[in-house]
Order: sequence, then C-alpha cells, then structure tokens
Amino acid sequence: MKIGYLGPKATFTDLAVTTMFPRAEKIPYHTIPECIDAVSNEEIDAGVVPLENALEGSVNLTLDYLIHEQLLPIVGEIIAPIQQHLMVHPYHAHHWTEVKEIYSHSHAIAQCHKFLHANLKKAKHVYMTSTSAAAKFVSERPHLPIAAIANRLAAEEYGLTIVQENIHDYDYNHTRFIIVRKQNEPLKIDSPLYAGDKTTLMVMLPKDQPGALHQVLSAFAWRKLNLTKIESRPAKTGLGNYFFIIDIDQKMDEVLIPGAIAELEALDCTVQVLGSYPYYII
Amino acid sequence: MKIGYLGPKATFTDLAVTTMFPRAEKIPYHTIPECIDAVSNEEIDAGVVPLENALEGSVNLTLDYLIHEQLLPIVGEIIAPIQQHLMVHPYHAHHWTEVKEIYSHSHAIAQCHKFLHANLKKAKHVYMTSTSAAAKFVSERPHLPIAAIANRLAAEEYGLTIVQENIHDYDYNHTRFIIVRKQNEPLKIDSPLYAGDKTTLMVMLPKDQPGALHQVLSAFAWRKLNLTKIESRPAKTGLGNYFFIIDIDQKMDEVLIPGAIAELEALDCTVQVLGSYPYYII
Repeated sequence: MKIGYLGPKATFTDLAVTTMFPRAEKIPYHTIPECIDAVSNEEIDAGVVPLENALEGSVNLTLDYLIHEQLLPIVGEIIAPIQQHLMVHPYHAHHWTEVKEIYSHSHAIAQCHKFLHANLKKAKHVYMTSTSAAAKFVSERPHLPIAAIANRLAAEEYGLTIVQENIHDYDYNHTRFIIVRKQNEPLKIDSPLYAGDKTTLMVMLPKDQPGALHQVLSAFAWRKLNLTKIESRPAKTGLGNYFFIIDIDQKMDEVLIPGAIAELEALDCTVQVLGSYPYYII
Repeated sequence: MKIGYLGPKATFTDLAVTTMFPRAEKIPYHTIPECIDAVSNEEIDAGVVPLENALEGSVNLTLDYLIHEQLLPIVGEIIAPIQQHLMVHPYHAHHWTEVKEIYSHSHAIAQCHKFLHANLKKAKHVYMTSTSAAAKFVSERPHLPIAAIANRLAAEEYGLTIVQENIHDYDYNHTRFIIVRKQNEPLKIDSPLYAGDKTTLMVMLPKDQPGALHQVLSAFAWRKLNLTKIESRPAKTGLGNYFFIIDIDQKMDEVLIPGAIAELEALDCTVQVLGSYPYYII
C-alpha cells in the first residue's frame, strides 16, 4: 500500500504514518495541496496531512484545500502527542550542555521555551523549515557544538543521540492528522490504537444573523449528539461570511445524524459530510 | 512608541505593524512567546502577534501562550489581506518567466498553487523559514535566475522588482493579528481603518457533556449577542477537555455581556474576558 504524507522525511507527520502503517510504502510530498492532488490522481492509495499542528501545517490550509479544491472523503484520523527531544551528534553526547546553537522549527523552539530558558539560556536559536531539516543539518556537522530539537524518528534517521527527552512545555499537546482517500472506503486497519469514531460536517449558514449558530447547534443538542469540536472559518467569498466545521462523537447512523442534517437544510444551511471515520491515538 | 512584533523584518506581521503604526519604533522578535514576554516585562509598549495566519504563526501558539503563561489583555486587532507577489532581482525583471527556482515559505507556495501551475510549471520550489527570508536570499544572488514569493514590504526592503502582483489563489484570504499590552488600556489610534469593536471570551465548560455548548450559546442567543467566531481548543489538562474562544461582535457593555457571563458562571463554566477592543481592516 502506498501512503503519501506531508514531508520531509522524519517530521511528525512521518512519525504518525510510520506508527500507523509500519509496512506501507511511504511517499513524502512538499506541500499539503501536492499530497491531496496525488490522492485525487490515484498516484497513492491514501494521503496523511496535518489538521491541527502548529509545526508542519495548519487546519486552515488542509480544510480550505479539501473544501475549495478537491473534495476527498476523510477516512481516518490519527492523534499523536507532540514529544520534542534535544539531540546532538554522538560525539557531543557527553558535553551537550555546552552547545552554542540550537536548530529547529521556530514553533518547536517556542514549544520548549521553559526547558531552554532553564537549561541552555546562552545558546543561540537558529530557525529551520522543519524539525527534521534541523536534525539533518546537525548530523552533517559533527565538528560543531550544536543541537537540534526534533522527534525520535529524526534522531534515528540522522544518527543523532537524544540527550534530553520530552523537553516540550506541555504534556497534553497533540497534533491531529487526517487520512484522505479518493473513494470513501476505510483503510482496513486492525489496530489496538483504535479509539472511537467521529463524523465531520461542514455547515454554511444562510447569512450572518444573531443566534443562527445557536439554532444550528439545537439540531444536534436535542438529539443528544455530542460535538467534540466546532470551529468557525471565514468563507473565501467575502469578509463576514463563515462556515463551520463540526465534529460529532459517533459514526454516521441512519436516524440521528441524517435527521440533524435534514433539519439544517430546512433552515437553508448548506451541509456537507466531510467524512465518518475511525480515529486512532498513538 | 515601541511596538514589538513577530519577526523577521518584512513579513506579513511587519506589514500590518507598519501600516497601523507608521511612526512607531518597530522591534522584531524571533518567537511569539518572546514577543509576549517583552510586553509583560515592559520592554515595549505593545506587541503584535498573529492570531490566524497560515504563514508565520498560528492561533494555537498565540492563544495557548496568552491563556497558559502570560494573561495579557488584547487591546486591538488588525485584519489584513494576504497579497502574495512574485519578485525577482531587477536584473531579471524582463525575463522572469525563465526563472528556474522559486523561493518562499511552503505555505506561501501552496497559496499560489494555481498561478505557479499555470505559469511557472517547470520551476523548482525551495522552502525557506519565511517569505521575507526568501526575498533576502534572492536579493543577495543577482546572478541566479531565481524568484521569491513575498509581500510588497519585502520587495521594498530588499530591492526586488515585483513582476506579477497578487498571484495568490484566493482574494478573501485574510490574516488576523492581535495587539497585546501590559495594562488594559487601548492604544489611542485615530485611524480611518477602524472597522468596529469586538469582545473575546474564553469559556471552559464544567465537563464534556452533550448539549453543553448549546446551553452556553443560549446565553448569547437570547440576548441577541452576535458571535463572529467560535472555536473549541483542547485544554492542556488531558485529552477530551476543551475550552472555547468566542468573539462577540460588540464592545463590552454594562448589561448584556456581563449578564451572559453571570449566566455561564451559574452553569459552572469558567469565563475569562481576553479583551474588548477595536479592530482595523487594512
């Protein structure tokens, strides 16, 4: 099976793909649109792109591209903790506290703010396009007293030694990735990481009016459908036009969710089911 | 007046600051936390950081840092269109269609997907840490047939010639920046760009239960308070705990918003006013 993902190699997206699909052929893409296009052109069986991730992409770019350009079904979701490690060339492992420069993505450095402030206050920060580019850069300069902040996969890929584990400031910092396919067929994943099912809807309100969102949520509330996420996003049709992304904490059924959708459509909302799919926590 | 902002120079954040505060002393910071800390330490009079921006930062990092680390009041918001331009060294201005490589932030390249596909299909894409770093790189290599995608300020700063304007795929793509201060005092900005007022609340639900959000929105709906944004964000206290960021389309008043907050607190929600402030559209 061929799985495309937002590259480069050894980023957090790669880590999620490697954990979920250990035997798949992995193909990195440079941008989220390129990865989604490759799914659409059937170059790959599925694509994995970040949905909520401060490091490698943003919900905006992924959802905007899916909604405006290539409406592919979401067939799965991967939730992964952000675990940042400090790594150096093996040559510097015993005197890592003396590193003079730390390389990483600017957001990864921001995520390790407290650790760096307490332990490596004098080291200079150098920003790279990704955490994995930082690990590669450090691995190619064994003579320099420098370190990278990246994930475990990057340490393995580039032969670096992790000298401090889990240096990120918050333990419950997670990234979310979605799996998209050309056809709405789930990947047959028999994984102990399976954690439940959800359904994602896009709802466009007829016009911006006080209480319209409240009316929309009523359709879910009285059916006791639990929403785990709601986000308003500006539509690209003019300032002040919005659509909503809503996650419902269950699989598509034959009564409740179709009933809620019918009610929303009767209110002149436009509703699109972006997917009903299993999610996995790694 | 000293205004700090998320750097480097000539990014979209700098463009927003330059437009709003043409006479201020501008100080770039490397990361969102550094800029917010500088406000807190009173090194600067105000800080400008991105709130919704796929290029230079993310709502997550800014709001998380404000909510978890440094609760500074939001005193203003700047909404700016994303306008991407293709620029080259003046030497190449007449034969820009022959450029072999295009330098920019990966998201900026993604935002200009259609233009690049139609006009510069064979050019290789090279990713940089920011659009402004790309413009600087191109300006320093006049002998190479390369181009950058960046904003107008970067073209001016680095002496590049814009050869194609507005090559971004969507016209209504906007970035939002917030202005934070140490004290909750508005900056006295007498600007024709003033477009209205809003109030931003953080609401933490007592526990994850079906319909809880619906109940929260009722408090606003029956008072005819118009919400222009709602976003659920995972709290960093465990998977499945959420808080909500809600924007109300008006200034803090003495009756309606305080009444809604009192009602939410009676439902055991925790409510924090992140700011009540004017916004400007540039």
